[in-house]
Formats: sequence, structure tokens, C-alpha cells
Amino acid sequence: MAHGRDHRTPNGMTEKCGVVGVSLADRDAARPLYYSLYALQHRGQESAGIVTHDGFQQHSHVEMGLVGDVFGADDLDQLNGPAGIGHVRYPTAGGVNTCCAQPFSVSFKSGSLGLAHNGNLVNAAEIRSELEALGHAFTSNGDTEVIAHDLARNLLEEDLVRAVKRTMSRIHGSYALTIMHDDAVLGVRDPEGNRPLCIGKLDDGYVLASESAAIDTLDGELVRDVAPGELIVLEPDGSGFDSYQLIDRDDTAHCFFEHVYFSRPDSVIDDGLVYEVRRDLGRELWTESGIETDVVMPVPDSGRSFASGYAEAANDGDADVEFAEGLMKNRYVGRTFIMPTQDERERAVRLKLNPIRSTVEGKTVTIIDDSIVRGTTSTQLVDLIRDAGAEEVHVRIGAPPIVAPCYMGIDMASRDELIAADKSIDDIKEVIGADSLSYLSIDAIADVLGRAKGDLCLGCVTGEYPYDIEGEQTDRDVTRPVVGGESAPADD
Amino acid sequence: MAHGRDHRTPNGMTEKCGVVGVSLADRDAARPLYYSLYALQHRGQESAGIVTHDGFQQHSHVEMGLVGDVFGADDLDQLNGPAGIGHVRYPTAGGVNTCCAQPFSVSFKSGSLGLAHNGNLVNAAEIRSELEALGHAFTSNGDTEVIAHDLARNLLEEDLVRAVKRTMSRIHGSYALTIMHDDAVLGVRDPEGNRPLCIGKLDDGYVLASESAAIDTLDGELVRDVAPGELIVLEPDGSGFDSYQLIDRDDTAHCFFEHVYFSRPDSVIDDGLVYEVRRDLGRELWTESGIETDVVMPVPDSGRSFASGYAEAANDGDADVEFAEGLMKNRYVGRTFIMPTQDERERAVRLKLNPIRSTVEGKTVTIIDDSIVRGTTSTQLVDLIRDAGAEEVHVRIGAPPIVAPCYMGIDMASRDELIAADKSIDDIKEVIGADSLSYLSIDAIADVLGRAKGDLCLGCVTGEYPYDIEGEQTDRDVTRPVVGGESAPADD
Amino acid sequence: MAHGRDHRTPNGMTEKCGVVGVSLADRDAARPLYYSLYALQHRGQESAGIVTHDGFQQHSHVEMGLVGDVFGADDLDQLNGPAGIGHVRYPTAGGVNTCCAQPFSVSFKSGSLGLAHNGNLVNAAEIRSELEALGHAFTSNGDTEVIAHDLARNLLEEDLVRAVKRTMSRIHGSYALTIMHDDAVLGVRDPEGNRPLCIGKLDDGYVLASESAAIDTLDGELVRDVAPGELIVLEPDGSGFDSYQLIDRDDTAHCFFEHVYFSRPDSVIDDGLVYEVRRDLGRELWTESGIETDVVMPVPDSGRSFASGYAEAANDGDADVEFAEGLMKNRYVGRTFIMPTQDERERAVRLKLNPIRSTVEGKTVTIIDDSIVRGTTSTQLVDLIRDAGAEEVHVRIGAPPIVAPCYMGIDMASRDELIAADKSIDDIKEVIGADSLSYLSIDAIADVLGRAKGDLCLGCVTGEYPYDIEGEQTDRDVTRPVVGGESAPADD
Amino acid sequence: MAHGRDHRTPNGMTEKCGVVGVSLADRDAARPLYYSLYALQHRGQESAGIVTHDGFQQHSHVEMGLVGDVFGADDLDQLNGPAGIGHVRYPTAGGVNTCCAQPFSVSFKSGSLGLAHNGNLVNAAEIRSELEALGHAFTSNGDTEVIAHDLARNLLEEDLVRAVKRTMSRIHGSYALTIMHDDAVLGVRDPEGNRPLCIGKLDDGYVLASESAAIDTLDGELVRDVAPGELIVLEPDGSGFDSYQLIDRDDTAHCFFEHVYFSRPDSVIDDGLVYEVRRDLGRELWTESGIETDVVMPVPDSGRSFASGYAEAANDGDADVEFAEGLMKNRYVGRTFIMPTQDERERAVRLKLNPIRSTVEGKTVTIIDDSIVRGTTSTQLVDLIRDAGAEEVHVRIGAPPIVAPCYMGIDMASRDELIAADKSIDDIKEVIGADSLSYLSIDAIADVLGRAKGDLCLGCVTGEYPYDIEGEQTDRDVTRPVVGGESAPADD
Repeated sequence: MAHGRDHRTPNGMTEKCGVVGVSLADRDAARPLYYSLYALQHRGQESAGIVTHDGFQQHSHVEMGLVGDVFGADDLDQLNGPAGIGHVRYPTAGGVNTCCAQPFSVSFKSGSLGLAHNGNLVNAAEIRSELEALGHAFTSNGDTEVIAHDLARNLLEEDLVRAVKRTMSRIHGSYALTIMHDDAVLGVRDPEGNRPLCIGKLDDGYVLASESAAIDTLDGELVRDVAPGELIVLEPDGSGFDSYQLIDRDDTAHCFFEHVYFSRPDSVIDDGLVYEVRRDLGRELWTESGIETDVVMPVPDSGRSFASGYAEAANDGDADVEFAEGLMKNRYVGRTFIMPTQDERERAVRLKLNPIRSTVEGKTVTIIDDSIVRGTTSTQLVDLIRDAGAEEVHVRIGAPPIVAPCYMGIDMASRDELIAADKSIDDIKEVIGADSLSYLSIDAIADVLGRAKGDLCLGCVTGEYPYDIEGEQTDRDVTRPVVGGESAPADD
Repeated sequence: MAHGRDHRTPNGMTEKCGVVGVSLADRDAARPLYYSLYALQHRGQESAGIVTHDGFQQHSHVEMGLVGDVFGADDLDQLNGPAGIGHVRYPTAGGVNTCCAQPFSVSFKSGSLGLAHNGNLVNAAEIRSELEALGHAFTSNGDTEVIAHDLARNLLEEDLVRAVKRTMSRIHGSYALTIMHDDAVLGVRDPEGNRPLCIGKLDDGYVLASESAAIDTLDGELVRDVAPGELIVLEPDGSGFDSYQLIDRDDTAHCFFEHVYFSRPDSVIDDGLVYEVRRDLGRELWTESGIETDVVMPVPDSGRSFASGYAEAANDGDADVEFAEGLMKNRYVGRTFIMPTQDERERAVRLKLNPIRSTVEGKTVTIIDDSIVRGTTSTQLVDLIRDAGAEEVHVRIGAPPIVAPCYMGIDMASRDELIAADKSIDDIKEVIGADSLSYLSIDAIADVLGRAKGDLCLGCVTGEYPYDIEGEQTDRDVTRPVVGGESAPADD
Repeated sequence: MAHGRDHRTPNGMTEKCGVVGVSLADRDAARPLYYSLYALQHRGQESAGIVTHDGFQQHSHVEMGLVGDVFGADDLDQLNGPAGIGHVRYPTAGGVNTCCAQPFSVSFKSGSLGLAHNGNLVNAAEIRSELEALGHAFTSNGDTEVIAHDLARNLLEEDLVRAVKRTMSRIHGSYALTIMHDDAVLGVRDPEGNRPLCIGKLDDGYVLASESAAIDTLDGELVRDVAPGELIVLEPDGSGFDSYQLIDRDDTAHCFFEHVYFSRPDSVIDDGLVYEVRRDLGRELWTESGIETDVVMPVPDSGRSFASGYAEAANDGDADVEFAEGLMKNRYVGRTFIMPTQDERERAVRLKLNPIRSTVEGKTVTIIDDSIVRGTTSTQLVDLIRDAGAEEVHVRIGAPPIVAPCYMGIDMASRDELIAADKSIDDIKEVIGADSLSYLSIDAIADVLGRAKGDLCLGCVTGEYPYDIEGEQTDRDVTRPVVGGESAPADD
Repeated sequence: MAHGRDHRTPNGMTEKCGVVGVSLADRDAARPLYYSLYALQHRGQESAGIVTHDGFQQHSHVEMGLVGDVFGADDLDQLNGPAGIGHVRYPTAGGVNTCCAQPFSVSFKSGSLGLAHNGNLVNAAEIRSELEALGHAFTSNGDTEVIAHDLARNLLEEDLVRAVKRTMSRIHGSYALTIMHDDAVLGVRDPEGNRPLCIGKLDDGYVLASESAAIDTLDGELVRDVAPGELIVLEPDGSGFDSYQLIDRDDTAHCFFEHVYFSRPDSVIDDGLVYEVRRDLGRELWTESGIETDVVMPVPDSGRSFASGYAEAANDGDADVEFAEGLMKNRYVGRTFIMPTQDERERAVRLKLNPIRSTVEGKTVTIIDDSIVRGTTSTQLVDLIRDAGAEEVHVRIGAPPIVAPCYMGIDMASRDELIAADKSIDDIKEVIGADSLSYLSIDAIADVLGRAKGDLCLGCVTGEYPYDIEGEQTDRDVTRPVVGGESAPADD
């Protein structure tokens, strides 16, 4: 496993992850952390880890693999203590990367620190250089170790809240963090609110999680989202939490893709139930580009909510369209699949998605998906559906064309792989062989999410980013965070 | 791994499996077999195996695990030859059972035999005793070894077709078999047609498979189902196949559960597209027991087709019901899951299925599933949906109550685990806490499948079986197969 | 893993193995079997297996790997019953072969059979054909399955002793077998006594083993060797054993290589302690070809006993030679070693064996080994020792030149790999670069073992075999066993 | 895997390891490092690792397991660059410890650092505290990370040589280090010379290794030992090395146990060939406590050189003793062995060591070993040899009694496990049941090694240590290192 200093390029930075933190009255935190990581498994399948603290010492178990494979009953039994944090990590392009499995742990003068991070810093290299100049040495190339060192250094001189604030004023980019300082569990969300983080209440404690579905899994209640720039400190006895609004910004940069693609439909992200958002986006999609059709079919599973909204809106109007689950998905196609030879290429799609002939034969078909990245799957799908006897195949996409890469933590693809980076919608239509193709507008996204475009991160669909990224344009005047007033702790 | 002679009890007999066979002109059969087993993975996840023949010798690779884990590229490369058979096996209760992974291979006087078996014999012990009296020794307790030995013995005296016929006249029960005798690939379906088997045509050969979805995966065309009691012999050069109607019976005993639950929606089983069958069953369910409701929700994934038919039928009538995917399924909950403690029990369901609050809050909800076996999941589901704010929760099931175990190859549960074995529908409604509960009638099943009840195996819903099973009642006069006239081979 | 009918060529037949059988009064046999297989691990590292019987049913655990890896504590706990047999198998050329791991188990009309086999039949194909003609089907190409089927068939008509006798009168070749028929444990040695087998007494039972070292490990006492052609039946209660001299032959064919190379020095084989035999062979080696030398060095570990006998004999005479352990062996060089490139070739030997400079520098050195097979290692060794400063390097070998392959169960090499097959001793001396080279004479072997040459299997050093092997010469008049009189059981 | 700050107790500190470093002209260093780690495998079997540098970036592969298991051909191929270091680590008591596998790598302001460490610091906690006060955060509890951070910090202000010197003046204890700073390979030996390190010359480069046997394996030539307190910097092009005598002390503290037990017989440690040292110690043992005996037997493998010296000295005098390898060692008894129950205890020894009856029966036997730690094995051995018929059993040990634990890097045992900590030699004789027992004197050790007692570390045999260890006595006046004059680099 090679690593060098110059690997910290934008392409290598991206990481999709899930984080969680738990503080309970009496019970060990390990099992609640385990179940909540299970609920967030869709956010990362490369590695999983839990770090707990029993008031005396830290316990840690971090390994490559799925949550169910990483943790055995013995492992959970050894993770003592009522406080802990957890992490699942997304497989990044270019192979397995043991060095970056999280949570990341260090011990230092003032105790131990554990960090679980979802997001991506844009100035990690800069801060790392500053720390190196002070003598710090790093074991990995990850942003998380940079944050850990910076925070540890600040903790030498400041109390916990001030130290976190100082670190937040230095780091720039997207981050939802759960942190354990000795047995104290904290949650922090970046000032732009780019990555999601929410607070949940259990019978005997509190939980922080990337998505509210993790709270549901623990039979808990969603309290609210963590605010952009806010620090949450869970009470060690599980009795409540303190809030510190450490940084205030005028505008936010919520990632709209969390709603469109990444999060679970049953999660509430920034006050919006993802399922409803997608259904509403589907309705807008009909309004903007609805076309007469016999049957509307989702590309499972991600297109399902969009398609049902689209069909509903159609039937609410004059149209009479059938909603049909006409594409059968094979749940077992996984990472250990042997790639077919050139000749067998078509089979690969049919292994994953097989059209049900009777649903498309002799019909005008509209298929609904959440996005087109490289265009390969769409091309094959349109082909398959036509082969199965469809008269016409129309494609509708519940998001705008992706024209630029994501630097904030979603591993989409590099610019030259993105079909929409240099092709018009008409050209893409030709490539995928559809009879018509429409995307949803950016305005519709903003409308449905109920936010100004200036409060969203739209980098991947506009090419203008809310952060200062080398070689890219920004849509903001000032991209450095402004340090806000510190609010008094407010018990829940 | 202990094994003894008295393990062959009815409970241990059941096995759900998928079989496949391929004969090609020129190409190696290994990859087509691999992809078709991938397509049949839902029929068995315990073990997978492929046996090929290159005209000179047999090659075999059989292991415990999923298709994607069992076969590496190297394994496929070593499975030489244009002819082969494959098998996936279902995890049986009571632990992994290496001894019974298939295909089962033997070599004997007249060459080599490979067998892949889906089904269950009711007189295996009897035939085994007869063979043991002739000196045969067995390495496992499986039915398949019994069939292999019987067939090998018959092949000493008869040609292939007559030998298969003689074996078929001796064995009794359900079986869909793919067989390889040296490099000849055969398919056989039991005289009652209990287990499915169909024939597909590829560009350069023919394929036999439990379900037509496997043929789709190979970009092939479904030719037809193998008839009950029919033997299909694929031409070694992939140019066609011969058919021999070896046994004719007046009545069949098709398993209706293949349509209701087991097969893929995109498969055609005995001339019926499973997706359409389920949708029609859903429509019948509305006709028989439709109830006013705000929202109709499938239990994913098995209830989806039923629910869409049900909702459609409702809206075709006077009703105005919303169809919503209100239950979020976690795709990652698998076999390596650590069971929660007593206190955490509720979380286990929510890990698997989480209700989307907005879809049920303040509403009358009808959930649609394909069956209720033990009743545990239904109870928890009704509870969860009520907790999420539903006013009323109605349950509709797309099949009749399961009152008796299956002896023909589907591992449902033992009789004392079946909630409907000794409880009325009303009692079950109370147990699961639903506001109302209805099952589909047996008549509706027969109607939709377009068959007389006497042509279906309805053992699990009537307690009367089309076979002579010790301790159970039969619905047939003569349960022994009648040997039919041998038809001339008919080239396709 | 390919297997075909024509794989049963002489080259593929060879297998070195260890067998064991135990019958105890009260205790489970699993742990004694485990420890005795550990003691016999040098006889086979490819697979290990134990089969036990608890009076009611068989229990079996057979896997690829070393004894310590194959069995966990749980595995041993599940192997219930006071009777059992075990097997370790040697890695055969051409890859791992799962199909042939032993003991081999079958169940048949008269119960269950388990077999563990060391040796090699020369007429297995013939008997297999006869059995196939009677309808038998085989799952492997191994001799052991042939013996099992033949024995099972005979057991249909005869009692156990007569059935074994009938099988012994049919099979021809080398075999030491431990057999379990239901819970009865048996041991059988081929009429020529080619492979070793001995009986040991424990406090609470009896044990059969390939070598007496296994009995020592169980703190037992060696009773005696099993005689050629003898059947031993252990009493089920561990109280004794019955002996049946089933076949008597005038001449035996003991493998002299068991003494020279294969067995442990601390084992007693056919009344001779291997350590003493090797020491005496070393003394003879001095007598026959002793040469003035400063230092005598064994090639560890196999040459050690020879070298100490050689040095002793030298010093007992006029010579004044130093015995020195001048070659350091690396215990960790194993099977997972990455082969060096051409350039690094010399390092490979030095990884395994490194000369201690001070023991050879400026000296006349004689190195003693048990055999030369291909000559590669000897060449490199002579080179290394010369590089380390030796004036002269003489090589003495404690066995005659190996001129022909072994067909009786020792995996030496094929004929074209054997350096002595077509080279004179003088030529070999040149090839390996020694100053002188001598082998021990066949007469010396016979003398030290105290047997007529006609009672030994000398095939590999003469090219004439005591068995009728296609394409090879025999040194016997009649090679078929003569059925002997059955002696009355003699309690020990 | 739990870790806490208070785990850094003296008992947990001990670690036996092997280190290596290579700098070549052109070739990749990976394979030479691999082979040299193989040669040092006896110094550590828990983990193995290699770090290389290709001039541009570092490559690293570190895993738990044996060298042969940790590295595949692919792994070696990815370890690019002509410079690298390697490490093998000893299994420490109390379970596998992933966190401490080495080499340890960090990157910092002035590049990257890799460290491989054999030894143990006595003031690591102190230096760690100082570094923590400066803001350093640590990911493990190991000494090596402390050295790495200290060195990295010094490198911010000084050149490489001065930085190493400053670190050496701060750390106190035993250390042989190979270091990689970017692509520069360094070797450092502690000022007391406690742990060994030597320099070797290859055709195309230089190598640093714990033992010279690693150099032999690479077909290289031993140049010399690294001097206590010396820094060696290998030229990046493999053309030579620079030497810097950074710290000079009047007295050294060489570990005598490296010679007696730990190192390979074929290694030269501090100018003495280990094989000769042991043989000479064996001769001294005869001189000091020789006893009339029929046979002298080594406990294999460690007692062999001692025993041959002992027997030689005896026969050089008046005595007539036979040297015999009368104990057979089972090479396969490894770590995965299932411990026998109480009843089976005796078998455990016999699995490992079995006496050859004929060598001891009716004789007076003297067994020679290198040490007695807990006394358990000796007790069982004496018992076994008596059981095998020995008239008398005398025990002679080639080292003084071990009365105190080692704090300098050898994992012997804790004080209360050491049989000699509180027992007289006479008492020990009684415990192990020998007819007589003698140890070698400390004077003999010093004589044979040719050093003053004050130049050896004799802590474990005197209880007085050359270092300042809390709770123990020291045999030195000043234990802090005195910073020496810096010598000019001297090209080799």
C-alpha cells in the first residue's frame, strides 16, 4: 500500500461516510452504535469502526469490511463504556485503503481523542503544513488526522468548547464530525451545513447521527438537525446535551445530493423527509417535462420515489399513465462479481436489471432515475427495454445534469468521466439512444427544498462551488468562515 | 459435522434450490453457467457449484457460499468444456451442510454422471435400501446421491433414455433435475410438474434452468417449459434438443408457491409471468376483501407486485387509494448480524424495515404481503406502523393461510411454528394486532393460475398432499406415477 | 479441480500418509486421535481427518491443512465416541486435492464404514472395473474408495473378518489401513508388510498407528508390529484385541526407505528403532567408504543419525574426525515462500541451510545425507561449503542410489528427475562438484535391517519391484498374494 | 483491542525483534529485505513489515503473521525503490497487538520517517510527556512512536546527524534501530551496545541487520558490528556508508543472552561466532561441573552446541562419554495447538520432545540445556528420561540461574514465574527431580565472551541492571548517557 505526500489531490480527497455518537446513562454504548452503523451502512461499505470509553480508558475496534463482518459478539462485548462514536467508510476508487479506516484515535497530554468524520476539507494541506512546522508528524494522509492534531494542540491551552471553536475557525470545507474526548461525546457540523448531522433522544440517552434513520433503528426520537456551525456536547450521563453556536454564517451550502441520491428515503435531512422530497421532485419533473406515456417505470431502487411522484402528478392531471415496477433488480450482484468478457457485456446489465417483458411490450415507456453519471447504464437500459418490445423509451432524471466533480465528500467520478461535462442534453439523448431525455431544473431543486440557490452547494451541477477550490470557480464572495458569537449552552 | 442414518426425517428433507444446464457449440459453458446461477441466487445461498465436461473428462468446482464468492476467474477458467450443469442450494435449518453441496458427481462403468437437483423425494429411503441391498454404499444422506446411484445402475443395462425412464418410474416426489452423462446435458421434470424447469435458446446453444430469468441473463430466448414427466436431451453441439415424454399423468401438482413467493417476478413459470400473476392475485385480493383505506403499502420486496395490483383494482373501482412505498428495507441486513438482546428486540425489525412516518401518520393504512408464516414479523410491523401514527392498520395477504408444512422442497417451517396451523384468521388478526386481516382464497389462486385445483400442489394450504407422505393425508387416488408411452424425439 | 478417469496413472498414485485408530473404555477417542496425528504430522501435511463413532452414529471432521489448523477445540468436542480412526495426507505433486482427504466414509446396508489408508494399490483400476460392472458408482479416483466399496459389498454376505479377508485376497499392493465398521476399530497390513503399522496399549484402551512415536505421545506402550497379512480387531471396550492372520506369504517386501528417511528416529518399525538403524547404517557407511577428513557434518535434520554413526565408527578406528553441526537450518522456511529470481537462486539455499564458516574454513569436510534425489540441493550445498573456505568437500550417502520411482506410496520423483536413473556415481560426483562421493550398498541395508534382500522392497534402488507393475520389472515369481489359513483370534 | 495510557508498565515493555535496512545501487530493495527478514524470523513471529522509498514516495506493507504469510509476490512488487527497512516482531504475552507492528511510519515537515526498533526504552514515558506538552498526539503506546516524534521534532531544527544525536542524548535504554528518512537508510545502536546490529556488504549495496546470518542469506559479507553509540548512514547509491560515533561511553552493557540463547548459531555477534561461543561455554560447563556419565544429550535445538562442547571437553580429558541426539523434537508443534486437559498433561511434553529409549535405557544420562526459566519443561523431561529407563539423570545448564526479569527487550517471564528467583540450585534440583544440577558461572560467561563483567548486561542473572529502572537496582554509577564527540564520517 503506497502512500506519499502528494496524494492529497482533489481526486483522492472524496469520501462518503456515515458517523454516529452515543452517550447513555448506564448501558454500554457498543450495541446501539452497532445497530446505528448498520442503519447507515449505505453510506459506506469499505470499513467500519467503533471507539468507546468506559471512564477509565478507550476501547477501539476498526476493520475493513461491512458492519456485520467487522463486529462479532465478542468484539462488542469488549467495547465497554456508556459513551462511544462510530464510523462507516465508503470504498474509494483505486483500492482498499486500510490507513484511513475510522474512527481515528490519538492520546495526548490532555487525554484521548477519537474522531469520526464525514466530509472533506479544502485546506487540510495548509493546516497540516502549519502543524508540521510545529513538529507534528502524521501517520496517514487523511483530513481526520489533521483535525485530530489541531484539536489536540488547541486543547493544551483551551477548554473543550474553545478548542473546538479554534479548530473550526481554522479548517475549511465540509465536515460532520462525532468526537470523543475521553468519555465526552461531541458532534460538530460545518458552518455551511454541507454534510448532515442530527440529534436523537433515546429512553436513556442521546445519539448523534448522519441520518435520522439511525435514530429510528434505536427506537429513538429525532430531536432536530445540528445547525451549521453548531457544536453539540452530550451529557456524560445521557441526561441531555449542551449547544454552542460556534460559527455563524449568512449563507449555507447544503448538499442537495444528499436528498436526491445519497440518504435513505426514511431519513429526515434538514427538516425534509427524503422520501417526500424525492416524490415532490418527481412531481416537478412531470410538470417541467412530462410526456404522454403508457407506463412509468423507476430504475430500482433509487428512482422509485421520483417515479411514483411523477406518475401521481401525471394522473392528477389529464394523463392516464400506469406506474409499473418493470425492472427486476438482482440483489445479489455485489463486489465479488467476475466481469464478463467483451462479448458478454450485455449480460452484465441483465444480471443487475432485467426488464419484465409484459410491462413494456408494445408500449411507450418512461423510465425515471435520479441521475446519469457516466451514461453507460442508461445506454444499456434503454437498449434492453427496446429489445423487450417497447415502442418508445423516454428518460426523465430527477436532478440536473452533473457537469463537474464533487469535492465535498461524494465520490461521483472525475470530470472526464461525467457524460454531461462536455455534452448537451440532446447529445446525451443520442448517446443513450432514448426517444427523449429531460433533467430536472436547478430551480425546481431549490423550490422543493425550500431554500435559496445561494444556500445550497450546487457545485456538481453548476461548476461553481461554495468553497475556494484550486482550479475551480466559486459562487461565494467570501469563502472563509466568519467566527460567530458563542451562545450560552441550552439544555434540551 | 455429525451425520447419521436417521437424519432423513421429513423436516430435514426440505431444500429450495436452483438448477441449470448448458450445451454450446464452441464456447466454454462455465461463464454462461456462472451468470445463470447468479440469476438464480435467490433460490439458494448456501452453496454453489458447476460441473463441466470437455468431451474427455469432467471438471468440477463446488463450495459453500454465494456464487460470487465461490467462483473466481481462475476457477471458471479451469472449468473447461462446452457442456455443463450448475446448482445453487438453500441454507437449511440447523447449520451449514457441506456434504450436500451440488452438483453431485460420480463416475461408474459407463462414464461419469453429474446431477443438480431441486426438489424432494418421498421414497428416497426405500430406494436407498434397495440399492444398499445390491451393495451400494453412500457418502451422504441426500436424495441426489440416491438418484445418481439408481441411474448409474440402470445405465449398466439400458440406453440413456430408458435408464432415465426406469429411474423416474422408481423415484417419487418432486424433482427438477439437470443431469450430465459424460458430455451430454439432460433436463428432467417430475411427472407432477411440481418444481419448475424451462428451456432456452442461445445464439450458439441451449440452456435448461429453474427459471426463465436465467435465460434472459444469457440474452437467450425462452423456448418453453419442460413438461411434467418430460426428458430433454440437449444436442452436444448446441444445435437443438430432443424431447421424450417418459411419464404421463392425468393430473399435475404444480407448486403454486413458486408463483406467489419463490420465483423472480421477471420469470415465466408454466406459461405465466410471475409479475403478472402476482399483480392479478393482488387484484383478486381487492375483489375478495378490499377495504377503504388512505394508503396501500407493500411489504418490500415480496409484496410489491401484489400491492400494485391491489391498489390498481381499488382505483379502477370507486376507491381512491394512494399506493406508497412506505416501508424502507435495509439491504445490508444479512446472515452475519448479531442478534439483539431481549430489550433490543424491537430494533431488529426497524433495522430491516423502517416505516416512513409521513406515509402513514394519521392515515388508514393497508399493508400487503405474500404470506404469513410464523406471524412474528407481521406483529412487529403492525406495531411499528401504529407507532408511526397510523389510525388503522389493515393486513391483506396474497395467498391462503399456510396450515401445513411443505414436503416438496420449500423450507417454510415445521407445523408447530405455523401460526395458521391451529389458529383462525380472526385469532391471527388479534395476535398480530391488525384492525382487519384477510387472506386470498384458494379458488382465486386456481383462477389466476388458470388451472384446476386438482392440478396444483396445495398441501401447505389444505394439509392434503398430492403425494403419499407418512403421517399426512393425500388428495390423490393413485400417488404412484404411471409409466407413460415413450414419444419419439422431436427436434426443436 | 479437474478429475477424470484416466488420472490413475502410476505417477499420480503415490501418496505418503499416516494412519491411526483408537478404541477406549470410556473416554472420547477424539483427543488421543488428535495427539497421535500430531505425532505423525511428518507423514502428511496436506490434509487431516478424524472419524469417530459413539455407538449410535458416526462423526467426522476432515479438512485440508495441518492437524493444528484443521481441528479446533469445538471440532474435537463434537467428535463423540470412544472409538475412532484418523489420517494425515501428504501433499501430492500438482496441487491440492480436496477429493482425497481421508478418512473416507460411506454408509451402506450393514452400517457405516470409515477407512484411513497409507499405501498404494497396483490393481485398483481392475477392481474398480469389476465393481462398476456390478453397478457401483464412485465419487473420487482414490484407491481408498475402491477398498471401501469392495469391503461394503463383501459385508453384505460375510461377517467382518471373512469380508476383510475376501477384500485382502482381491486387492494387491501396499496398504496399512485403519478401518471403522460402525464402532469397531480394525487395523490391516498388506501381506508384504510394505507399509508399517503397529499396536499400542494405553491405560484404558488400545491404539493402532503407522509409527510407534504416536503411541509414545499417548503415553502408551508399544505391543508389537502388526504382522504382514494380519487383521487386528480392537475390542470395543478397550480391553484387548483379536488377531487374525488372514494371508500368509513366504516373502515380505518391507520398504527400507521407511527406516532410511521417512519415519521418525524415535519410532520402532518392524522391531528396529529407526535411530539405531540409521546410526548403524552410518557406521557401515564409514566401513564401506570412509575417508580421512577433519570434520564430519550432517545435513540437518535427516542426516544427523547417519553422521553420528559415521563419525563414531571413524573415531572407533584410527581416524580422528570432529563431528560438527556446521549447517544451520532455518525452521521457518515453509510452503508460502516466494521463489527467488534466477539471480537470487543461491540465496534460496542459504535461507534454508547456512554453513557456519568456522566449522569448515581451511578443512577437509565430509557431509552426510540420507539420499540424493534430483541433486540440486547437494550441488548448492557443496558450493556453499567450498565458498565458506573448505579445502575439500566429500559427500557420503546413507542409502544406495535411487534409480527408479516408487509405486508403493512414497512420492519421490518421476524417473527423469532422478539424477541416478541415468548417471554413474562418478558422473553425479562431477555434477554436484564433490571431491568424492559414495553411497551405501544394498547389502549393507539388508545386513543392518537383518533381513534377506528378498524380504525388502528395493524397487527404487534396483528397478525391480516386488509387485507386478505395468512397464516395470518384478523381482518375484508370483506377485499375487496367496490366501493363507485363518488363525483363531488370539487375545493379547 | 483496548488500550489505555497506563499500560506502559515495565512488564508490557519487553519485545524481542529483528531489524534490517538495505540501500542498493539499482535493484529494488524489497526482495533482499524479504529474504533477510526470513533469516531473522526466529527473532519475532508476531508481525512482519517492510517500508521502502523510491526517491519519490514511501511504500509500506506491515501485517500480523510470519514473513512467508505476510508478503505475497504482489506485495513485494509494489514495494518499489532501492532503499528500505524491515522488521519482525516477537509475540508478546497477552495477545496479538496490531497497533505495534513495525516499521512505524510518519510523514512530517521535513519528509517521511520509517523506524524499525529492537529494544526497550526506560524513559519513554518521560519523553512522551515532554512531547505531549509540546502538543504531540500519539496513536499507540509504543516506544517507537516516541522515538519517531522526537526525531521528527529535532529534524525541524537540525540536520539528520545532529537530530539523531539529539534524540540519542534524550532516550535511554536498549535500541538497535534501522531508520529511513525519505530514501536515506540509517542504523543506530544504543550507547551501551545492548542490542546487536551489524553492517554487511553486498555486490551492489550495503545492509544493516540484527544478525549477520541475514547478510549471509543475501550472499553478502559481514563488514563489522555497529559500535555502541554509533550512527551508520548508508549511501543512497549503495556505494558505501558514513559512520558517526555520536555517543561514547566508558562501559558497555552487551546482552550476554543474545549469545547464549537468542541469536542463530551461524551469526557473528560483537565479533563472536555464536556457535563457537556456545561450544566454548559447553566446554567451560564441563570444566566447572563435569560429571561421569554414559551419555550426553542436548535438549534440541538450543542445547546442541553447548552439549557438543561439553562432550568434547569430557572426551578430551579422561572421560569417555557418548554424545547422542536422544530427544526427538516434533517440528510441527506450533501455536495453534489445543492444550491437553489436566490428565493429558504428560502427553504435551511428549508431543514436543520424545526420548529415544535405546539412548537412555540403563544409562547415566546428562542433558544439556541453555537455560531454565519456569522449570516446567525440565521437570517433565527428567521424568520422561527416567521413565525411558535412565539410571541417573543429570542436568547441566550453559548459563547462570535467571533470578530477575529482563527489561531490555527479551520476553523471559515475570519475576514470580522464574524458578531461580527465590529458590537455591539445590531446591531447583529437587523440584525438577534431577540427580544433580549445575549452572555455568557468570565468570565463565565473561571469560568466554572476552569481556569484563562490567561491560555486559547481567541484570537477569544478578538482579542489578546497567540502567536506572524503577524498583530495581543498578550496577552503574552514572546511568545517563554521556554525549560523546562527533567523529568525522569515515567511508568504508
